[in-house]
Amino acid sequence: MRVLILAAGLGKRMKSKYPKVMHKIMGKELINWVIDTAKNLNPSKIGVVLGHKSEMVKEILPSDIDIYYQKEQLGTGHAVMSAKEFLNDEDILILYGDTPLITENTLKNLIEKHISTNADATILTAILNDPTGYGRIIKDQDGNFIDIVEEADANEIQKKVKEINSGFVIFNGKKLKNALFKIKPNNNQREYYLTDVPKKLDNVKTYILDDFSETLGINNRLQLAEAEKIMKNRTLKNLMLNGVTIIDPSTTYISPDVKIGQDTIIHPMTFIFGETIIGDDCEIGPMTRISSCKVGNHVKIVRSECEDAVIGNNVSIGPYSRLRTGTILRDNVKIGNFVETKKSIINKNTKAQHLSYLGDATIGEDVNIGAGTITCNYDGKNKHKTYIGNRVFVGSNSSLVAPINIDDDVLIGAGSTITENIPKGSLALGRAKQINKADWVFKKREKGE
Amino acid sequence: MRVLILAAGLGKRMKSKYPKVMHKIMGKELINWVIDTAKNLNPSKIGVVLGHKSEMVKEILPSDIDIYYQKEQLGTGHAVMSAKEFLNDEDILILYGDTPLITENTLKNLIEKHISTNADATILTAILNDPTGYGRIIKDQDGNFIDIVEEADANEIQKKVKEINSGFVIFNGKKLKNALFKIKPNNNQREYYLTDVPKKLDNVKTYILDDFSETLGINNRLQLAEAEKIMKNRTLKNLMLNGVTIIDPSTTYISPDVKIGQDTIIHPMTFIFGETIIGDDCEIGPMTRISSCKVGNHVKIVRSECEDAVIGNNVSIGPYSRLRTGTILRDNVKIGNFVETKKSIINKNTKAQHLSYLGDATIGEDVNIGAGTITCNYDGKNKHKTYIGNRVFVGSNSSLVAPINIDDDVLIGAGSTITENIPKGSLALGRAKQINKADWVFKKREKGE
Amino acid sequence: MRVLILAAGLGKRMKSKYPKVMHKIMGKELINWVIDTAKNLNPSKIGVVLGHKSEMVKEILPSDIDIYYQKEQLGTGHAVMSAKEFLNDEDILILYGDTPLITENTLKNLIEKHISTNADATILTAILNDPTGYGRIIKDQDGNFIDIVEEADANEIQKKVKEINSGFVIFNGKKLKNALFKIKPNNNQREYYLTDVPKKLDNVKTYILDDFSETLGINNRLQLAEAEKIMKNRTLKNLMLNGVTIIDPSTTYISPDVKIGQDTIIHPMTFIFGETIIGDDCEIGPMTRISSCKVGNHVKIVRSECEDAVIGNNVSIGPYSRLRTGTILRDNVKIGNFVETKKSIINKNTKAQHLSYLGDATIGEDVNIGAGTITCNYDGKNKHKTYIGNRVFVGSNSSLVAPINIDDDVLIGAGSTITENIPKGSLALGRAKQINKADWVFKKREKGE
Repeated sequence: MRVLILAAGLGKRMKSKYPKVMHKIMGKELINWVIDTAKNLNPSKIGVVLGHKSEMVKEILPSDIDIYYQKEQLGTGHAVMSAKEFLNDEDILILYGDTPLITENTLKNLIEKHISTNADATILTAILNDPTGYGRIIKDQDGNFIDIVEEADANEIQKKVKEINSGFVIFNGKKLKNALFKIKPNNNQREYYLTDVPKKLDNVKTYILDDFSETLGINNRLQLAEAEKIMKNRTLKNLMLNGVTIIDPSTTYISPDVKIGQDTIIHPMTFIFGETIIGDDCEIGPMTRISSCKVGNHVKIVRSECEDAVIGNNVSIGPYSRLRTGTILRDNVKIGNFVETKKSIINKNTKAQHLSYLGDATIGEDVNIGAGTITCNYDGKNKHKTYIGNRVFVGSNSSLVAPINIDDDVLIGAGSTITENIPKGSLALGRAKQINKADWVFKKREKGE
Repeated sequence: MRVLILAAGLGKRMKSKYPKVMHKIMGKELINWVIDTAKNLNPSKIGVVLGHKSEMVKEILPSDIDIYYQKEQLGTGHAVMSAKEFLNDEDILILYGDTPLITENTLKNLIEKHISTNADATILTAILNDPTGYGRIIKDQDGNFIDIVEEADANEIQKKVKEINSGFVIFNGKKLKNALFKIKPNNNQREYYLTDVPKKLDNVKTYILDDFSETLGINNRLQLAEAEKIMKNRTLKNLMLNGVTIIDPSTTYISPDVKIGQDTIIHPMTFIFGETIIGDDCEIGPMTRISSCKVGNHVKIVRSECEDAVIGNNVSIGPYSRLRTGTILRDNVKIGNFVETKKSIINKNTKAQHLSYLGDATIGEDVNIGAGTITCNYDGKNKHKTYIGNRVFVGSNSSLVAPINIDDDVLIGAGSTITENIPKGSLALGRAKQINKADWVFKKREKGE
Repeated sequence: MRVLILAAGLGKRMKSKYPKVMHKIMGKELINWVIDTAKNLNPSKIGVVLGHKSEMVKEILPSDIDIYYQKEQLGTGHAVMSAKEFLNDEDILILYGDTPLITENTLKNLIEKHISTNADATILTAILNDPTGYGRIIKDQDGNFIDIVEEADANEIQKKVKEINSGFVIFNGKKLKNALFKIKPNNNQREYYLTDVPKKLDNVKTYILDDFSETLGINNRLQLAEAEKIMKNRTLKNLMLNGVTIIDPSTTYISPDVKIGQDTIIHPMTFIFGETIIGDDCEIGPMTRISSCKVGNHVKIVRSECEDAVIGNNVSIGPYSRLRTGTILRDNVKIGNFVETKKSIINKNTKAQHLSYLGDATIGEDVNIGAGTITCNYDGKNKHKTYIGNRVFVGSNSSLVAPINIDDDVLIGAGSTITENIPKGSLALGRAKQINKADWVFKKREKGE
């Protein structure tokens, strides 16, 4: 089987500089949602028909996709004609670049019906209580397909038909090739409609879809927001039914690739994206954003940002923490408020709880990073590394000027600027002695200053 | 035309110390929403009838409004009588201080119908599937207005009428003056109803409104929340249809004055208020609050607060940044986590990415502000200024004691307290030398301390 | 009266390591919601029937609850039999550990009907437009109770009955004891159903409940989320009708124990939990979390975290503040961005507005805590206290090494590390002198470094 995705439309109602299929839901372009679904069907080839601003779309497509160009917008039939070379004797499934909600499961059922009935074409249809506006599926008394009739062309009896055409269809490739070039643009728009093909075939079947929202096409940004919501709710429902507590699904945003363990609780206003894996019995959120992280069990991440980080078990993060790319936190680490980490390994039982920046650092076990500690990793040209051994106590408001090596069991006095390595077990101080000038304030006041 | 706004009610069900019309949606008092809508109609004068706690309401009204007092609460007719001096030969449109959702567009249509039909009065009506509870518009067989009949007084036939009175009405001023003082308080409440006026006129028209939610009156805080939501969704829909992507409208809060450019994406949990202008292709949010800012193109503002700031192009802000009043960021500036700026100009390509406070500062181009840098702008009495030239590198954890002048190309060592000006190209250090006391920690431990 | 709560079920569909009744809504276990409601009815005793993983459930129950064990899962009737010793001549109300939404008010009405009619049993029922799936209440022509018939056993006429059984029921204890052991497991599941008891009694009444959502049982995590929402909305509605403005109820999370004063405004994305009391005319949120705090009048808490804190009047907190346990803020205090407080008393008019950590500190009135100030309260072993007098000015980036005593009217220079006590009125400095090395940067550049 081959899959052909029609994606030539501009999408005027998007009011955008970008073609419609480049708009995103959950951070992925509409067309790439469709391509990813298509790939899951294991087709021998995937083709895409591009039109408006095709160069822009081309840039975001995977490299293994065949691209065809529809130079004029003359209808869906014409779009398929534009990919003439793509058509061979294999079955061909037609998808749309602007309908990203169609599921693998529905398409598999459609294909299965198509194959098992040896059909010339099998149309994905839906039963609607109010079919107004949709093309009706007209069948004879025995239930055999006759035609698809558009609303405008339907008579009163036909208008009462509740089975409608979704647009999705799979063809026998050979039969499609024969019939496709026979269709005529005999309509007001003077376009070639793909819906005119089935009636030219002998054995056309229909497969009725369960959830009509799968076929939602996106033509403006209201529909884009609606699709985002449907996609997100699908993922959330799936997670909930599999043992994840989501306190408020309406303010939780999780993308389909995310994996979350049993009895983990997701608090409101939480975003989890990318290939994130979260273990069991965690509490995530509220107001937490996680992207592409690996998180162990019994971890709490409250009101924080985590990106490309690896987090062990029993770790506590937040509120107001920020883990940036390359952060590795071993078991029992605590990262607290107003603390930023980047490209740093922080070993077991170490704590950095207040107002710190830890960048390009390797920090041992059982270390206490005092409030206001800063690794000065940048000299204006290069980034340098900080090594901190086990059981080190870094006093508050310390500046650790990298490259620097602080050995095990060191104690750094508060307010120190550390520019030289510190041997094991040493006390290091880098601060001035305190001077008190008696009555200075009172004298000033007397002078009226 | 003149506009008279009835706003004398207390609103007992608000359970408030403040009169009803002082409560706010989207940060603006209910009555000021109505006044702003009225002003868009360019009336010759706007009058307001106040009653309960009128002194409080008076304080929040624009100065060009005529104020009348209704001393007793004797009905809407009585309220208009209280503004007797306001009535002249001009048309008079009656609005209500507690119905802020009425739109300029609807009122313009009402006025247009009134003028084109040369009516004595034109009533804004609605067609409801379930009219229960509303005053019905009774017409004769030819569709001529007869009367408004309240639910309580309606017979079975009248109750079936689906056209109801919204309360909004425009009168020919002369006709109103004649009829108004003829109405009688012949009802259970012993009140003078403005709805008793039309039947005393000859030529009364109706204008049917599209969206009944425009007439939502606010009597308790559930309705206040509902009105807030309707107002917000109106704005969001408008933005979306004009080329702004809003990921989740249900958690996005934007006020009507805000202008946003094409292809800008607004992430969830974002608030944009005041006269904010945002350019094209920005990404705003999630969890960002912007108030009265001017933002260029291709700007990212993630999880941050911005108030009264001017932001150039390609600027990156957040997460966890706070731009306070008087912040000006030129192109390509980066402000990072736990950084606060106030009354500061930050020039092109400059970065302040971690844990800093920049207040009353002018900072040049290509400057690097190290983590933990603080402009010490306050001496307990006055605020002082910090000048930093181009290409300056401010080491981490530096304290810059203002007033201070740091010239171009200066390098400040980490952990320095800078109290004196630094000439061009100098290295400045203001920190103590480090001392390592060998084995200090081990000795302490031996002693069991 | 006694209350017996059936809570033996595992809740397979929760897909959890924990038994169903241990899952939480608004932070409290389902069974504890039911127990707290039961306690409000002042029963002479409360019993709970546990089954699956009863040891885990036992741990979270109050100590004054009688516990019974149902060893096999043989139906609700069998569950009650398992608590045979709990049954005496008192009335016995049956509740369920997985239906936390039932209200005290509904149960009081049920009990009142039961007592006033001297009934053998009184069943809580509901009238549903679509009763499909529920057990129907079958009555004779005079409205006398005959039986409860399950959907599966109902004939066509019975299926049309709209009054259904909620499961909640109160029995005369004596009558229940007589009838209970007569029921038989004559059904497909071979279980003993409590619904088979009423037909064995003479005088059975029904009480129809207003809001069917009260009986929502929780069987999976979709229903758990739904229950959370219903519970939360109940609380919010109650607050709004009593004078609290809630801008967006859909993103506001407040637990029932919270008390909030008149004309306080709650902005979106705000969480208020625990026994928190908030005064009048406050503005809370957006993006604020408050837990177990006492807050005065006219307080603003923007985008902050507050836990176990006591806050006076006219206090301003946030954005990005964090008040931890044991924080006491007197009137007119200002806590600003990136400031953390813990076990600290901060007296009137004192300000700590930027990037500070104040732990184990007592701070006087009219104090200015400069940006970047850190109380170094931890020496690696113990926590120590910081005392700061009245009218002290702490310069920016100061480290105050505790234990330390800073007397009234002291001025601490920016960038100081303070290790020794400071007498009244003194200026204290603990920083190195600044050195400028002329042209250092230019020379470096020439060398190409």
